[in-house]
Amino acid sequence: MPETIISSKTKTVVISPDKPFVIIGERINPTGRKLLAREMAAGDYSRVERDALKQVAAGAHMLDVNAGIPLADEPGILAHSIKLVQSLTDVPISIDSSIVEALKQGLEVYEGKALLNSVTGEEERLEVVLPLVKKYGCAVVGISNDETGISEDPDVRFEVAKKIVHRAMDYGIPREDVVIDPLVMPIGAMQYAGRQVFRLVYRLTHELGVNTTCGASNISFGLPNRGPLNGGFLSMAMASGLSSAITNPLEEHIMSGIAVGDVMTGNDANCSAWIKANRKPDPEGEEGGARRRRSRRKG
Amino acid sequence: MPETIISSKTKTVVISPDKPFVIIGERINPTGRKLLAREMAAGDYSRVERDALKQVAAGAHMLDVNAGIPLADEPGILAHSIKLVQSLTDVPISIDSSIVEALKQGLEVYEGKALLNSVTGEEERLEVVLPLVKKYGCAVVGISNDETGISEDPDVRFEVAKKIVHRAMDYGIPREDVVIDPLVMPIGAMQYAGRQVFRLVYRLTHELGVNTTCGASNISFGLPNRGPLNGGFLSMAMASGLSSAITNPLEEHIMSGIAVGDVMTGNDANCSAWIKANRKPDPEGEEGGARRRRSRRKG
Repeated sequence: MPETIISSKTKTVVISPDKPFVIIGERINPTGRKLLAREMAAGDYSRVERDALKQVAAGAHMLDVNAGIPLADEPGILAHSIKLVQSLTDVPISIDSSIVEALKQGLEVYEGKALLNSVTGEEERLEVVLPLVKKYGCAVVGISNDETGISEDPDVRFEVAKKIVHRAMDYGIPREDVVIDPLVMPIGAMQYAGRQVFRLVYRLTHELGVNTTCGASNISFGLPNRGPLNGGFLSMAMASGLSSAITNPLEEHIMSGIAVGDVMTGNDANCSAWIKANRKPDPEGEEGGARRRRSRRKG
Repeated sequence: MPETIISSKTKTVVISPDKPFVIIGERINPTGRKLLAREMAAGDYSRVERDALKQVAAGAHMLDVNAGIPLADEPGILAHSIKLVQSLTDVPISIDSSIVEALKQGLEVYEGKALLNSVTGEEERLEVVLPLVKKYGCAVVGISNDETGISEDPDVRFEVAKKIVHRAMDYGIPREDVVIDPLVMPIGAMQYAGRQVFRLVYRLTHELGVNTTCGASNISFGLPNRGPLNGGFLSMAMASGLSSAITNPLEEHIMSGIAVGDVMTGNDANCSAWIKANRKPDPEGEEGGARRRRSRRKG
Protein backbone atom coordinates (compact mmCIF):
# COMPACT_ATOMS: atom_id res chain seq x y z
CA MET A 1 0.00 0.00 0.00
CA PRO A 2 1.26 3.52 -0.82
CA GLU A 3 2.78 5.58 2.02
CA THR A 4 3.04 9.36 1.67
CA ILE A 5 5.25 10.97 4.30
CA ILE A 6 4.61 14.61 5.22
CA SER A 7 6.47 16.41 7.98
CA SER A 8 6.95 19.58 9.96
CA LYS A 9 10.25 20.35 11.66
CA THR A 10 9.46 17.90 14.47
CA LYS A 11 6.48 15.78 13.45
CA THR A 12 5.88 13.20 10.72
CA VAL A 13 2.50 12.12 9.35
CA VAL A 14 2.12 9.01 7.19
CA ILE A 15 -0.81 8.93 4.77
CA SER A 16 -1.66 5.32 3.88
CA PRO A 17 -4.75 3.11 3.47
CA ASP A 18 -3.11 0.92 6.16
CA LYS A 19 -2.72 3.71 8.72
CA PRO A 20 -5.25 5.78 10.70
CA PHE A 21 -6.99 8.26 8.41
CA VAL A 22 -5.26 11.63 8.09
CA ILE A 23 -7.47 14.62 8.89
CA ILE A 24 -6.29 17.84 7.20
CA GLY A 25 -8.06 20.76 8.89
CA GLU A 26 -9.73 22.99 6.28
CA ARG A 27 -10.66 26.04 8.34
CA ILE A 28 -7.74 28.40 7.59
CA ASN A 29 -9.22 29.47 4.28
CA PRO A 30 -10.78 32.88 3.62
CA THR A 31 -12.89 31.56 0.71
CA GLY A 32 -16.48 32.19 1.78
CA ARG A 33 -15.37 33.60 5.16
CA LYS A 34 -15.64 37.36 4.69
CA LEU A 35 -14.58 38.32 8.19
CA LEU A 36 -11.46 36.14 8.07
CA ALA A 37 -10.61 37.51 4.62
CA ARG A 38 -10.92 41.10 5.84
CA GLU A 39 -8.83 40.43 8.94
CA MET A 40 -6.07 38.62 7.06
CA ALA A 41 -5.89 41.34 4.41
CA ALA A 42 -5.55 43.91 7.22
CA GLY A 43 -2.74 41.97 8.91
CA ASP A 44 -4.87 40.66 11.79
CA TYR A 45 -4.03 36.96 12.18
CA SER A 46 -5.74 36.37 15.54
CA ARG A 47 -8.47 34.19 13.93
CA VAL A 48 -5.85 32.20 12.01
CA GLU A 49 -4.14 31.50 15.34
CA ARG A 50 -7.38 30.41 17.00
CA ASP A 51 -8.40 28.24 14.03
CA ALA A 52 -5.00 26.53 14.04
CA LEU A 53 -5.11 25.71 17.75
CA LYS A 54 -8.77 24.70 17.77
CA GLN A 55 -8.38 22.30 14.86
CA VAL A 56 -5.31 20.61 16.29
CA ALA A 57 -7.01 20.28 19.68
CA ALA A 58 -10.01 18.69 17.93
CA GLY A 59 -7.81 16.05 16.30
CA ALA A 60 -6.47 17.46 13.01
CA HIS A 61 -3.23 15.72 12.00
CA MET A 62 -2.34 18.40 9.44
CA LEU A 63 -3.59 21.89 8.61
CA ASP A 64 -4.45 23.28 5.20
CA VAL A 65 -3.45 26.95 4.90
CA ASN A 66 -5.02 29.07 2.17
CA ALA A 67 -4.83 32.85 1.72
CA GLY A 68 -6.97 33.30 -1.38
CA ILE A 69 -8.19 36.88 -0.90
CA PRO A 70 -9.02 38.89 -4.03
CA LEU A 71 -6.77 41.93 -4.61
CA ALA A 72 -4.60 41.12 -1.60
CA ASP A 73 -0.91 40.12 -1.55
CA GLU A 74 -1.71 36.40 -1.49
CA PRO A 75 1.92 35.17 -1.63
CA GLY A 76 2.94 37.39 1.29
CA ILE A 77 -0.12 36.59 3.40
CA LEU A 78 0.23 32.85 2.74
CA ALA A 79 3.91 32.84 3.69
CA HIS A 80 3.17 34.84 6.85
CA SER A 81 0.30 32.50 7.80
CA ILE A 82 2.47 29.42 7.31
CA LYS A 83 5.24 30.81 9.49
CA LEU A 84 2.68 31.76 12.13
CA VAL A 85 0.98 28.34 12.13
CA GLN A 86 4.34 26.59 12.31
CA SER A 87 5.27 28.70 15.33
CA LEU A 88 2.05 27.70 17.12
CA THR A 89 1.62 24.00 16.33
CA ASP A 90 3.85 21.14 15.26
CA VAL A 91 1.52 19.55 12.69
CA PRO A 92 2.59 19.47 9.03
CA ILE A 93 0.92 21.86 6.59
CA SER A 94 -0.84 21.62 3.27
CA ILE A 95 0.15 24.79 1.34
CA ASP A 96 -2.99 25.71 -0.57
CA SER A 97 -3.17 28.18 -3.45
CA SER A 98 -4.06 28.45 -7.10
CA ILE A 99 -1.34 31.07 -7.57
CA VAL A 100 2.09 29.67 -8.38
CA GLU A 101 3.98 32.55 -6.79
CA ALA A 102 2.09 31.93 -3.53
CA LEU A 103 2.93 28.20 -3.61
CA LYS A 104 6.57 29.14 -4.17
CA GLN A 105 6.75 31.63 -1.30
CA GLY A 106 4.90 29.16 0.95
CA LEU A 107 7.42 26.44 0.17
CA GLU A 108 10.28 28.87 0.73
CA VAL A 109 9.30 29.60 4.34
CA TYR A 110 8.02 26.11 5.24
CA GLU A 111 10.17 23.97 7.52
CA GLY A 112 9.74 20.26 6.73
CA LYS A 113 8.20 18.30 3.85
CA ALA A 114 4.93 20.01 2.91
CA LEU A 115 1.91 18.81 0.97
CA LEU A 116 1.48 21.22 -1.94
CA ASN A 117 -2.18 21.82 -2.79
CA SER A 118 -2.49 21.50 -5.76
CA VAL A 119 -1.77 20.63 -9.36
CA THR A 120 -4.39 19.62 -11.95
CA GLY A 121 -4.01 17.61 -15.15
CA GLU A 122 -3.82 20.86 -17.18
CA GLU A 123 -0.55 21.02 -19.13
CA GLU A 124 0.14 24.57 -18.09
CA ARG A 125 -0.22 23.73 -14.40
CA LEU A 126 1.80 20.52 -14.62
CA GLU A 127 4.66 22.41 -16.22
CA VAL A 128 4.93 25.03 -13.50
CA VAL A 129 3.91 23.16 -10.35
CA LEU A 130 5.78 19.86 -10.77
CA PRO A 131 9.22 21.51 -10.98
CA LEU A 132 8.44 23.22 -7.65
CA VAL A 133 7.47 19.87 -6.12
CA LYS A 134 10.75 18.38 -7.34
CA LYS A 135 12.85 21.36 -6.23
CA TYR A 136 11.46 21.48 -2.69
CA GLY A 137 11.07 17.69 -2.30
CA CYS A 138 7.47 18.02 -1.13
CA ALA A 139 4.38 15.96 -1.89
CA VAL A 140 1.52 17.25 -4.05
CA VAL A 141 -2.24 16.95 -4.35
CA GLY A 142 -3.25 16.09 -7.92
CA ILE A 143 -6.79 17.04 -8.85
CA SER A 144 -8.33 14.82 -11.50
CA ASN A 145 -9.52 17.47 -13.94
CA ASP A 146 -7.82 18.95 -17.00
CA GLU A 147 -8.30 21.48 -19.84
CA THR A 148 -11.65 19.85 -20.69
CA GLY A 149 -12.99 20.46 -17.16
CA ILE A 150 -14.25 17.81 -14.71
CA SER A 151 -15.46 14.73 -16.54
CA GLU A 152 -18.62 13.05 -15.28
CA ASP A 153 -17.08 9.76 -16.44
CA PRO A 154 -14.99 8.29 -13.59
CA ASP A 155 -12.84 6.39 -16.11
CA VAL A 156 -11.78 9.70 -17.65
CA ARG A 157 -11.01 11.09 -14.17
CA PHE A 158 -8.89 7.98 -13.54
CA GLU A 159 -6.95 8.63 -16.75
CA VAL A 160 -6.32 12.25 -15.77
CA ALA A 161 -5.02 11.05 -12.38
CA LYS A 162 -2.76 8.57 -14.15
CA LYS A 163 -1.40 11.32 -16.39
CA ILE A 164 -0.57 13.49 -13.35
CA VAL A 165 1.21 10.61 -11.60
CA HIS A 166 3.20 9.63 -14.68
CA ARG A 167 4.15 13.21 -15.46
CA ALA A 168 5.30 13.65 -11.84
CA MET A 169 7.44 10.54 -12.17
CA ASP A 170 8.97 11.99 -15.35
CA TYR A 171 10.12 14.91 -13.18
CA GLY A 172 11.69 12.44 -10.72
CA ILE A 173 8.93 12.80 -8.14
CA PRO A 174 8.15 9.42 -6.57
CA ARG A 175 4.66 8.01 -7.15
CA GLU A 176 3.93 7.99 -3.42
CA ASP A 177 4.41 11.76 -3.27
CA VAL A 178 1.32 12.33 -5.43
CA VAL A 179 -1.99 12.27 -3.51
CA ILE A 180 -4.98 12.24 -5.84
CA ASP A 181 -8.24 14.10 -5.24
CA PRO A 182 -10.87 12.19 -7.26
CA LEU A 183 -13.28 15.17 -7.06
CA VAL A 184 -16.53 14.75 -5.19
CA MET A 185 -19.75 15.87 -6.90
CA PRO A 186 -23.01 16.78 -5.10
CA ILE A 187 -25.15 13.65 -4.82
CA GLY A 188 -28.31 15.76 -4.84
CA ALA A 189 -27.52 16.59 -8.49
CA MET A 190 -25.74 13.38 -9.57
CA GLN A 191 -27.37 10.18 -8.36
CA TYR A 192 -24.26 8.01 -8.66
CA ALA A 193 -21.70 10.56 -7.41
CA GLY A 194 -21.08 8.37 -4.34
CA ARG A 195 -20.63 5.08 -6.20
CA GLN A 196 -18.31 6.86 -8.66
CA VAL A 197 -16.03 8.13 -5.91
CA PHE A 198 -15.96 4.76 -4.13
CA ARG A 199 -15.00 2.99 -7.34
CA LEU A 200 -12.49 5.67 -8.33
CA VAL A 201 -10.82 5.68 -4.90
CA TYR A 202 -10.60 1.87 -5.04
CA ARG A 203 -8.89 1.98 -8.45
CA LEU A 204 -6.57 4.87 -7.50
CA THR A 205 -5.50 2.97 -4.37
CA HIS A 206 -5.23 -0.59 -5.70
CA GLU A 207 -4.53 -0.08 -9.40
CA LEU A 208 -2.60 3.20 -9.58
CA GLY A 209 -1.04 2.68 -6.13
CA VAL A 210 -1.46 6.21 -4.80
CA ASN A 211 -3.01 7.82 -1.76
CA THR A 212 -6.20 9.84 -2.04
CA THR A 213 -7.73 12.88 -0.43
CA CYS A 214 -10.92 14.83 -0.96
CA GLY A 215 -13.07 17.71 0.15
CA ALA A 216 -15.89 15.57 1.50
CA SER A 217 -18.60 18.09 2.19
CA ASN A 218 -19.35 18.77 -1.48
CA ILE A 219 -21.20 15.41 -1.53
CA SER A 220 -24.09 16.82 0.54
CA PHE A 221 -24.35 20.24 -1.16
CA GLY A 222 -27.98 21.42 -1.21
CA LEU A 223 -29.31 18.67 1.09
CA PRO A 224 -30.69 19.07 4.63
CA ASN A 225 -28.92 17.65 7.73
CA ARG A 226 -25.55 17.46 6.02
CA GLY A 227 -23.49 16.26 9.01
CA PRO A 228 -24.47 12.58 8.96
CA LEU A 229 -24.18 12.52 5.14
CA ASN A 230 -20.62 13.90 5.24
CA GLY A 231 -19.56 11.58 8.06
CA GLY A 232 -21.14 8.50 6.47
CA PHE A 233 -19.69 9.36 3.07
CA LEU A 234 -16.19 9.47 4.60
CA SER A 235 -16.64 6.06 6.30
CA MET A 236 -17.86 4.57 3.03
CA ALA A 237 -15.01 6.08 1.02
CA MET A 238 -12.57 4.75 3.64
CA ALA A 239 -13.94 1.25 2.94
CA SER A 240 -12.67 1.79 -0.64
CA GLY A 241 -9.26 3.00 0.55
CA LEU A 242 -9.59 6.80 1.00
CA SER A 243 -6.65 7.68 3.25
CA SER A 244 -7.06 11.41 3.99
CA ALA A 245 -9.48 14.32 3.65
CA ILE A 246 -9.35 18.09 3.79
CA THR A 247 -12.26 18.58 6.15
CA ASN A 248 -13.55 20.22 9.32
CA PRO A 249 -12.34 18.48 12.49
CA LEU A 250 -14.72 20.64 14.53
CA GLU A 251 -17.74 18.81 13.09
CA GLU A 252 -18.82 15.97 15.31
CA HIS A 253 -20.31 13.80 12.53
CA ILE A 254 -17.14 14.08 10.46
CA MET A 255 -14.96 12.97 13.35
CA SER A 256 -17.35 10.17 14.31
CA GLY A 257 -17.50 8.88 10.71
CA ILE A 258 -13.70 8.84 10.54
CA ALA A 259 -13.36 7.12 13.93
CA VAL A 260 -15.81 4.41 12.84
CA GLY A 261 -14.01 4.12 9.50
CA ASP A 262 -10.67 3.57 11.24
CA VAL A 263 -12.15 0.79 13.39
CA MET A 264 -13.80 -0.93 10.42
CA THR A 265 -10.73 -0.81 8.15
CA GLY A 266 -8.62 -2.31 10.95
CA ASN A 267 -6.54 0.87 11.15
CA ASP A 268 -7.48 1.59 14.76
CA ALA A 269 -5.33 -1.24 16.12
CA ASN A 270 -7.06 -3.12 18.96
CA CYS A 271 -9.81 -0.49 18.60
CA SER A 272 -7.83 1.39 21.21
CA ALA A 273 -8.61 4.91 20.00
CA TRP A 274 -12.33 4.00 19.90
CA ILE A 275 -12.25 2.43 23.36
CA LYS A 276 -10.34 5.36 24.83
CA ALA A 277 -12.76 7.91 23.38
CA ASN A 278 -15.90 5.97 24.26
CA ARG A 279 -15.35 4.21 27.55
CA LYS A 280 -17.62 5.12 30.40
CA PRO A 281 -16.27 7.69 32.86
CA ASP A 282 -14.62 6.09 35.86
CA PRO A 283 -16.35 7.45 39.01
CA GLU A 284 -12.94 7.46 40.79
CA GLY A 285 -11.90 10.37 38.62
CA GLU A 286 -8.31 9.83 37.55
CA GLU A 287 -9.14 7.56 34.62
CA GLY A 288 -12.42 9.29 33.72
CA GLY A 289 -13.12 9.41 29.99
CA ALA A 290 -14.89 12.77 30.11
CA ARG A 291 -12.17 14.33 32.21
CA ARG A 292 -9.47 12.93 29.95
CA ARG A 293 -11.22 14.33 26.90
CA ARG A 294 -11.57 17.74 28.50
CA SER A 295 -7.93 17.87 29.46
CA ARG A 296 -6.86 16.88 25.95
CA ARG A 297 -8.91 19.74 24.52
CA LYS A 298 -6.67 22.18 26.38
CA GLY A 299 -3.58 20.90 24.60
CA MET B 1 -27.50 -6.88 -10.51
CA PRO B 2 -29.31 -9.75 -8.72
CA GLU B 3 -32.94 -9.22 -7.70
CA THR B 4 -34.48 -11.41 -5.01
CA ILE B 5 -38.25 -11.12 -4.79
CA ILE B 6 -39.93 -11.89 -1.45
CA SER B 7 -43.65 -11.43 -0.85
CA SER B 8 -46.55 -11.64 1.56
CA LYS B 9 -50.10 -12.08 0.31
CA THR B 10 -50.29 -8.45 -0.69
CA LYS B 11 -46.81 -6.94 -0.58
CA THR B 12 -43.63 -7.51 -2.57
CA VAL B 13 -40.11 -6.63 -1.50
CA VAL B 14 -37.20 -6.64 -3.95
CA ILE B 15 -33.73 -7.21 -2.51
CA SER B 16 -31.08 -5.80 -4.85
CA PRO B 17 -27.87 -3.71 -4.68
CA ASP B 18 -29.71 -1.30 -7.01
CA LYS B 19 -32.75 -0.85 -4.76
CA PRO B 20 -33.20 0.75 -1.33
CA PHE B 21 -31.66 -1.47 1.36
CA VAL B 22 -34.04 -4.08 2.81
CA ILE B 23 -34.34 -3.97 6.60
CA ILE B 24 -35.41 -7.31 8.09
CA GLY B 25 -36.55 -6.69 11.70
CA GLU B 26 -34.74 -9.04 14.09
CA ARG B 27 -36.71 -8.53 17.30
CA ILE B 28 -39.13 -11.49 17.19
CA ASN B 29 -36.52 -13.92 18.47
CA PRO B 30 -36.54 -15.42 21.98
CA THR B 31 -32.79 -16.13 21.89
CA GLY B 32 -31.34 -14.09 24.75
CA ARG B 33 -34.80 -12.65 25.61
CA LYS B 34 -35.91 -14.71 28.62
CA LEU B 35 -39.20 -12.94 29.16
CA LEU B 36 -40.24 -13.29 25.53
CA ALA B 37 -39.22 -16.97 25.57
CA ARG B 38 -41.29 -17.65 28.70
CA GLU B 39 -44.32 -15.82 27.31
CA MET B 40 -44.20 -17.54 23.91
CA ALA B 41 -43.80 -20.97 25.54
CA ALA B 42 -46.86 -20.21 27.68
CA GLY B 43 -48.95 -19.14 24.68
CA ASP B 44 -48.79 -15.39 25.40
CA TYR B 45 -48.05 -13.66 22.08
CA SER B 46 -48.76 -10.08 23.16
CA ARG B 47 -45.07 -9.11 22.97
CA VAL B 48 -44.75 -10.73 19.54
CA GLU B 49 -47.66 -8.56 18.39
CA ARG B 50 -46.11 -5.38 19.81
CA ASP B 51 -42.67 -6.19 18.36
CA ALA B 52 -44.20 -6.81 14.93
CA LEU B 53 -46.10 -3.52 14.89
CA LYS B 54 -43.29 -1.46 16.39
CA GLN B 55 -40.69 -2.70 13.91
CA VAL B 56 -42.92 -2.08 10.88
CA ALA B 57 -43.78 1.40 12.18
CA ALA B 58 -40.04 2.08 12.57
CA GLY B 59 -39.36 1.16 8.95
CA ALA B 60 -38.78 -2.62 8.73
CA HIS B 61 -39.53 -3.91 5.22
CA MET B 62 -39.63 -7.55 6.37
CA LEU B 63 -39.76 -9.33 9.73
CA ASP B 64 -37.65 -12.26 10.85
CA VAL B 65 -39.67 -14.68 13.01
CA ASN B 66 -37.81 -17.13 15.25
CA ALA B 67 -39.25 -19.38 17.99
CA GLY B 68 -36.10 -21.07 19.23
CA ILE B 69 -37.09 -21.91 22.82
CA PRO B 70 -35.41 -24.94 24.45
CA LEU B 71 -37.80 -27.78 25.31
CA ALA B 72 -40.79 -26.02 23.75
CA ASP B 73 -42.82 -27.05 20.68
CA GLU B 74 -40.77 -24.87 18.32
CA PRO B 75 -42.54 -25.92 15.10
CA GLY B 76 -45.98 -25.18 16.58
CA ILE B 77 -44.96 -21.88 18.16
CA LEU B 78 -43.20 -20.74 14.96
CA ALA B 79 -46.23 -21.56 12.80
CA HIS B 80 -48.55 -19.78 15.23
CA SER B 81 -46.28 -16.71 15.35
CA ILE B 82 -46.10 -16.51 11.56
CA LYS B 83 -49.88 -16.67 11.19
CA LEU B 84 -50.24 -14.01 13.88
CA VAL B 85 -47.68 -11.66 12.33
CA GLN B 86 -49.27 -12.11 8.89
CA SER B 87 -52.66 -11.18 10.36
CA LEU B 88 -51.24 -7.96 11.84
CA THR B 89 -48.90 -6.64 9.16
CA ASP B 90 -48.48 -7.02 5.43
CA VAL B 91 -44.68 -7.23 5.31
CA PRO B 92 -43.06 -10.45 4.06
CA ILE B 93 -41.45 -12.77 6.60
CA SER B 94 -38.10 -14.45 7.06
CA ILE B 95 -38.87 -17.88 8.61
CA ASP B 96 -36.00 -18.47 11.02
CA SER B 97 -35.13 -21.80 12.63
CA SER B 98 -32.34 -24.35 12.89
CA ILE B 99 -34.96 -27.14 13.14
CA VAL B 100 -36.10 -28.51 9.80
CA GLU B 101 -39.57 -29.49 11.04
CA ALA B 102 -40.10 -25.89 12.21
CA LEU B 103 -39.04 -24.51 8.82
CA LYS B 104 -41.49 -26.93 7.18
CA GLN B 105 -44.47 -26.00 9.38
CA GLY B 106 -43.61 -22.33 8.95
CA LEU B 107 -43.62 -22.66 5.17
CA GLU B 108 -46.87 -24.63 5.34
CA VAL B 109 -48.81 -21.78 7.00
CA TYR B 110 -47.06 -18.86 5.24
CA GLU B 111 -48.99 -16.98 2.55
CA GLY B 112 -46.65 -15.63 -0.12
CA LYS B 113 -43.01 -16.24 -1.05
CA ALA B 114 -40.99 -16.40 2.16
CA LEU B 115 -37.29 -16.03 2.86
CA LEU B 116 -36.19 -19.25 4.59
CA ASN B 117 -33.51 -18.64 7.21
CA SER B 118 -31.31 -20.64 6.74
CA VAL B 119 -29.17 -23.29 5.13
CA THR B 120 -25.40 -23.68 5.64
CA GLY B 121 -22.79 -25.35 3.42
CA GLU B 122 -23.02 -28.53 5.50
CA GLU B 123 -24.01 -31.49 3.31
CA GLU B 124 -26.62 -32.70 5.77
CA ARG B 125 -28.34 -29.29 5.84
CA LEU B 126 -28.17 -28.76 2.09
CA GLU B 127 -29.86 -32.14 1.52
CA VAL B 128 -32.85 -31.43 3.74
CA VAL B 129 -33.35 -27.66 3.38
CA LEU B 130 -32.91 -27.18 -0.38
CA PRO B 131 -35.74 -29.63 -1.28
CA LEU B 132 -38.03 -27.53 0.96
CA VAL B 133 -36.95 -24.33 -0.78
CA LYS B 134 -37.71 -25.94 -4.14
CA LYS B 135 -41.06 -27.41 -3.02
CA TYR B 136 -42.39 -24.14 -1.57
CA GLY B 137 -40.78 -21.87 -4.17
CA CYS B 138 -39.30 -19.62 -1.52
CA ALA B 139 -35.91 -17.89 -1.27
CA VAL B 140 -33.24 -18.97 1.21
CA VAL B 141 -30.45 -17.46 3.29
CA GLY B 142 -27.19 -19.36 2.76
CA ILE B 143 -24.67 -19.04 5.58
CA SER B 144 -21.07 -19.36 4.48
CA ASN B 145 -19.88 -21.99 6.95
CA ASP B 146 -19.72 -25.78 6.58
CA GLU B 147 -18.70 -28.96 8.45
CA THR B 148 -15.30 -27.42 9.16
CA GLY B 149 -16.88 -24.43 10.95
CA ILE B 150 -16.46 -20.76 10.04
CA SER B 151 -13.23 -20.16 8.19
CA GLU B 152 -11.22 -17.06 9.06
CA ASP B 153 -10.13 -17.01 5.42
CA PRO B 154 -12.65 -15.01 3.36
CA ASP B 155 -11.69 -16.92 0.21
CA VAL B 156 -12.81 -20.15 1.88
CA ARG B 157 -16.08 -18.49 2.93
CA PHE B 158 -16.55 -17.38 -0.69
CA GLU B 159 -16.07 -20.99 -1.87
CA VAL B 160 -18.65 -22.23 0.66
CA ALA B 161 -21.12 -19.62 -0.60
CA LYS B 162 -20.44 -20.72 -4.17
CA LYS B 163 -21.09 -24.34 -3.23
CA ILE B 164 -24.45 -23.41 -1.66
CA VAL B 165 -25.48 -21.43 -4.75
CA HIS B 166 -24.46 -24.17 -7.17
CA ARG B 167 -26.10 -26.90 -5.11
CA ALA B 168 -29.32 -24.83 -5.00
CA MET B 169 -29.19 -24.47 -8.79
CA ASP B 170 -28.82 -28.28 -9.06
CA TYR B 171 -32.18 -28.49 -7.25
CA GLY B 172 -33.71 -26.08 -9.77
CA ILE B 173 -33.65 -23.10 -7.43
CA PRO B 174 -32.70 -19.91 -9.32
CA ARG B 175 -29.46 -18.23 -8.27
CA GLU B 176 -31.29 -15.05 -7.32
CA ASP B 177 -33.30 -16.94 -4.70
CA VAL B 178 -30.16 -17.56 -2.64
CA VAL B 179 -29.15 -14.68 -0.36
CA ILE B 180 -25.72 -15.17 1.19
CA ASP B 181 -24.75 -14.23 4.73
CA PRO B 182 -20.94 -13.74 4.63
CA LEU B 183 -20.78 -14.01 8.46
CA VAL B 184 -19.64 -11.00 10.44
CA MET B 185 -16.94 -11.51 13.10
CA PRO B 186 -16.31 -9.18 16.08
CA ILE B 187 -13.77 -6.55 15.07
CA GLY B 188 -12.58 -6.25 18.66
CA ALA B 189 -11.16 -9.78 18.30
CA MET B 190 -10.29 -9.81 14.57
CA GLN B 191 -8.63 -6.65 13.29
CA TYR B 192 -9.57 -7.16 9.64
CA ALA B 193 -13.10 -8.50 10.17
CA GLY B 194 -14.52 -5.37 8.51
CA ARG B 195 -12.24 -5.40 5.46
CA GLN B 196 -12.97 -9.12 5.04
CA VAL B 197 -16.71 -8.58 4.96
CA PHE B 198 -16.47 -5.62 2.57
CA ARG B 199 -14.31 -7.66 0.18
CA LEU B 200 -16.48 -10.75 0.50
CA VAL B 201 -19.73 -8.82 -0.05
CA TYR B 202 -18.18 -7.20 -3.13
CA ARG B 203 -17.20 -10.59 -4.59
CA LEU B 204 -20.54 -12.22 -3.71
CA THR B 205 -22.40 -9.36 -5.41
CA HIS B 206 -20.23 -8.77 -8.47
CA GLU B 207 -18.59 -12.18 -9.04
CA LEU B 208 -21.14 -14.71 -7.76
CA GLY B 209 -24.10 -12.46 -8.65
CA VAL B 210 -26.15 -12.96 -5.50
CA ASN B 211 -27.72 -10.75 -2.88
CA THR B 212 -26.30 -10.58 0.61
CA THR B 213 -27.61 -10.17 4.15
CA CYS B 214 -26.01 -10.17 7.59
CA GLY B 215 -26.51 -9.79 11.29
CA ALA B 216 -24.60 -6.54 11.59
CA SER B 217 -24.32 -6.09 15.34
CA ASN B 218 -21.81 -8.90 15.81
CA ILE B 219 -19.17 -6.54 14.39
CA SER B 220 -19.17 -4.41 17.57
CA PHE B 221 -19.36 -7.25 20.13
CA GLY B 222 -17.44 -6.33 23.28
CA LEU B 223 -16.86 -2.67 22.33
CA PRO B 224 -18.32 0.45 23.98
CA ASN B 225 -20.83 2.75 22.23
CA ARG B 226 -21.90 0.09 19.73
CA GLY B 227 -24.61 2.08 17.93
CA PRO B 228 -22.38 4.26 15.70
CA LEU B 229 -20.16 1.24 14.95
CA ASN B 230 -23.13 -0.86 13.81
CA GLY B 231 -24.63 1.96 11.75
CA GLY B 232 -21.29 2.90 10.17
CA PHE B 233 -20.47 -0.73 9.44
CA LEU B 234 -23.77 -1.08 7.54
CA SER B 235 -23.11 2.05 5.44
CA MET B 236 -19.63 0.79 4.61
CA ALA B 237 -20.88 -2.71 3.70
CA MET B 238 -23.55 -1.07 1.49
CA ALA B 239 -20.73 0.64 -0.41
CA SER B 240 -19.55 -2.88 -1.30
CA GLY B 241 -23.03 -4.02 -2.34
CA LEU B 242 -24.71 -5.33 0.85
CA SER B 243 -28.42 -5.30 0.00
CA SER B 244 -30.18 -6.35 3.22
CA ALA B 245 -29.60 -7.01 6.93
CA ILE B 246 -31.38 -8.76 9.75
CA THR B 247 -31.17 -5.96 12.27
CA ASN B 248 -32.97 -3.76 14.77
CA PRO B 249 -35.03 -1.00 13.12
CA LEU B 250 -35.69 0.51 16.55
CA GLU B 251 -32.04 1.57 16.85
CA GLU B 252 -31.48 5.12 15.65
CA HIS B 253 -27.85 4.65 14.53
CA ILE B 254 -28.75 1.57 12.48
CA MET B 255 -31.52 3.43 10.67
CA SER B 256 -29.38 6.51 10.14
CA GLY B 257 -26.49 4.42 8.75
CA ILE B 258 -28.86 2.72 6.30
CA ALA B 259 -30.48 6.01 5.24
CA VAL B 260 -27.04 7.52 4.55
CA GLY B 261 -26.01 4.34 2.74
CA ASP B 262 -29.07 4.53 0.47
CA VAL B 263 -28.26 8.15 -0.43
CA MET B 264 -24.59 7.40 -1.14
CA THR B 265 -25.25 4.30 -3.28
CA GLY B 266 -27.74 6.29 -5.37
CA ASN B 267 -30.57 4.01 -4.19
CA ASP B 268 -32.51 6.85 -2.55
CA ALA B 269 -33.56 8.35 -5.89
CA ASN B 270 -33.42 12.16 -5.86
CA CYS B 271 -32.50 11.78 -2.17
CA SER B 272 -36.23 12.04 -1.61
CA ALA B 273 -36.44 9.75 1.43
CA TRP B 274 -33.57 11.68 3.04
CA ILE B 275 -35.11 15.07 2.25
CA LYS B 276 -38.52 13.98 3.53
CA ALA B 277 -37.10 12.67 6.81
CA ASN B 278 -34.74 15.60 7.38
CA ARG B 279 -36.40 18.74 6.12
CA LYS B 280 -36.91 21.50 8.60
CA PRO B 281 -40.31 21.71 10.28
CA ASP B 282 -42.64 24.10 8.47
CA PRO B 283 -43.91 26.64 11.00
CA GLU B 284 -47.33 26.51 9.29
CA GLY B 285 -47.78 23.04 10.75
CA GLU B 286 -49.29 20.82 8.07
CA GLU B 287 -46.01 19.95 6.38
CA GLY B 288 -43.93 19.93 9.56
CA GLY B 289 -41.10 17.39 9.54
CA ALA B 290 -41.27 16.66 13.26
CA ARG B 291 -45.03 16.30 13.18
CA ARG B 292 -44.84 14.05 10.15
CA ARG B 293 -42.28 11.83 11.84
CA ARG B 294 -44.37 11.57 14.98
CA SER B 295 -47.51 10.68 13.09
CA ARG B 296 -45.68 8.02 11.04
CA ARG B 297 -44.56 6.37 14.26
CA LYS B 298 -48.19 5.80 15.22
CA GLY B 299 -48.86 3.81 12.08
